[in-house]
Formats: sequence, structure tokens, C-alpha cells
Amino acid sequence: MVILGIDPGVATVGFGVIDAERGRNRLIQYGTITTPAGQPLSVRLTQIYADMNELISTFHPAEMAVEELFFNTNLTTGISVAHGRGVILLAGEQAGIPIYEYTPMQVKRSVVGYGKAEKKQVMLMTQRLLRMDKIPRPDDAADALALAICHSRAATSLINADRTFDAKKYDTR
Amino acid sequence: MVILGIDPGVATVGFGVIDAERGRNRLIQYGTITTPAGQPLSVRLTQIYADMNELISTFHPAEMAVEELFFNTNLTTGISVAHGRGVILLAGEQAGIPIYEYTPMQVKRSVVGYGKAEKKQVMLMTQRLLRMDKIPRPDDAADALALAICHSRAATSLINADRTFDAKKYDTR
Repeated sequence: MVILGIDPGVATVGFGVIDAERGRNRLIQYGTITTPAGQPLSVRLTQIYADMNELISTFHPAEMAVEELFFNTNLTTGISVAHGRGVILLAGEQAGIPIYEYTPMQVKRSVVGYGKAEKKQVMLMTQRLLRMDKIPRPDDAADALALAICHSRAATSLINADRTFDAKKYDTR
Repeated sequence: MVILGIDPGVATVGFGVIDAERGRNRLIQYGTITTPAGQPLSVRLTQIYADMNELISTFHPAEMAVEELFFNTNLTTGISVAHGRGVILLAGEQAGIPIYEYTPMQVKRSVVGYGKAEKKQVMLMTQRLLRMDKIPRPDDAADALALAICHSRAATSLINADRTFDAKKYDTR
């Protein structure tokens, strides 16, 4: 299953594409969509939307994992990121892709095993899990890959949860 | 010139369409786009985007006036509204419509003549300026009409400013 992880923004949107099969993740692609600071917000959003559509039509992700916005974040930054996040969710929804949200803490807990892990630890684990030569750069792309990994594990848990539920059902007969 | 005023949001987007000619404004249409609370954000954004495109193709606005987000607003509300505002700006930009932003204070100053006017005063002036039988309802639609009126006046000022500039240029020959 191809998972597209997205670290939303307006100046920089990080993306990470992985193939998750039976608990083993394979790196497909990662990078950033960047928009020029001098342009009006509406123009930058239009570029992000077009680039998102291109990512989706290139990699055909089965599911998307998008970072949830922190409510204790800086207000100006949060408002700006939310504009970008709006057109990102739109592109995913229009393509019929199920979209999942994770907080930075959920990503850390999933990838490193500790919700308050340092950014560096998350990057090192991401590098290791995807068998990369170097730590993925820039940060936004690394965050997007970590989101995709986090989702691959959440999806696995969900399957297990369903199995447990079935077993219990049979048990009570 | 047809002006589309937009009061952005996710649950409710207010819209107001006016025809502004030589300082006289004529009401064309007003109302709201509403999305159901139980739906995922991505689904609600997709509906807002589709409805924005329908408004644009129905009324062919020459310019759009969209409320600017207040930075002293409630963070949770601000983040939510910004998601909706993102897809609204996208729809306008894709249709090639120039988009202008006004703060609530600018709208009050323009419509009532006083930046700290009560909401009720803005509504009464909006009703009077557009020669409506009643105060426009709901609030989001009334706000959108006030935004459109504010822009019709700002646009007039802009034309005057250009004239002044030309006069000055000729004067210095």
C-alpha cells in the first residue's frame, strides 16, 4: 500500500511517499513543494493544489497521512499553515483518498516509541526504518516520511484490532 | 462591476453579490454556503470549493472581497476558518478574479464611518445602502454584503488615486 505523508504549510509543504507491505516500509520518494514568499497567498495556494494533484497522479497513494495542527502553536503560523492544509485536504478528498491525521506527539511515539523524543531521534529512526544512506533533508520532508511510517503502523494496528474483535466474537458463541 | 463579498468559514460561508456602478450599489444576491458538522473536514472543504465555483460561474464577479483573519481571534476558530479560507482563495485565483482583503474594522469604517461600530449599525447601513426591505440575514450573509460594499468604495478610492497621480504627472511637465 502506497502512503503519502504530508507536512502541511504555505512556504514549504513536505511530502514523503512509502510503500508499506507486511510491516516492512520501502522508500519511494520524498521532497518539498515550495512557494515564493513574494507571491499573493491565493497564488501560492493554487501552486500547492496543482503540485498536490501532480503528486497524487504520479504516485497513486492508497491513503494519506497529514499532520494535525497543534493548538498551542503560534497563531500567525497556525493560520498560515491552515490555509495550505485546506487545499491539501481538498486535493486528497477530490481524488477519493482516505485521509488520516496525526499529531507530532503521535508520530514521535510511533516512530521512536516516546512522545517527547527529540526531532533528531525521529530523523535517525526514519533513516533506519527506510534504509536510507543519509538522514532525509530538509526537515519538512523528513517529517512527512515519519508521518507516513506512523500511518503504516497505525494501519497495521487497525487490522490487528479487527482480528481481535473477530476472535472475541467467535469466542462468545 | 460585479463584486463578490465572502465571509469565510467552514460551517458557514457568507456570500454577497452586488453590482457597483458609479458609487451606486445594487443588490444581486446573498446567502450562505453551509456544511454539515458531522462530516470530515476534507468533505466539507470539497463542498465549499464546489459551491464557490458555482457562485463564480453563476455571477461572474469581476472582483472578490474576502474578510481578513483577525489575529486576536480564538485560535481553534481561526484555524478552522483558515482551512475554509484556503479553498475560497483557491477558487477565486483559479477563476482569475482579483482578490482583496479587508479587516472587520476596515469594513465598519467604510460602511458606517466608524471602525468600532456595533454589528447592528453595519447591518442597518448595509440594508439602507442596498435599499433592502429588511436587514439581511443571517449574519454571515450580512457581513459578506458589507465586505462587498466596503470594496466598492475602496475601488472608487483607487480610481481617484490613479487620477490624482496622472494629474500630478502632467503637472510636473
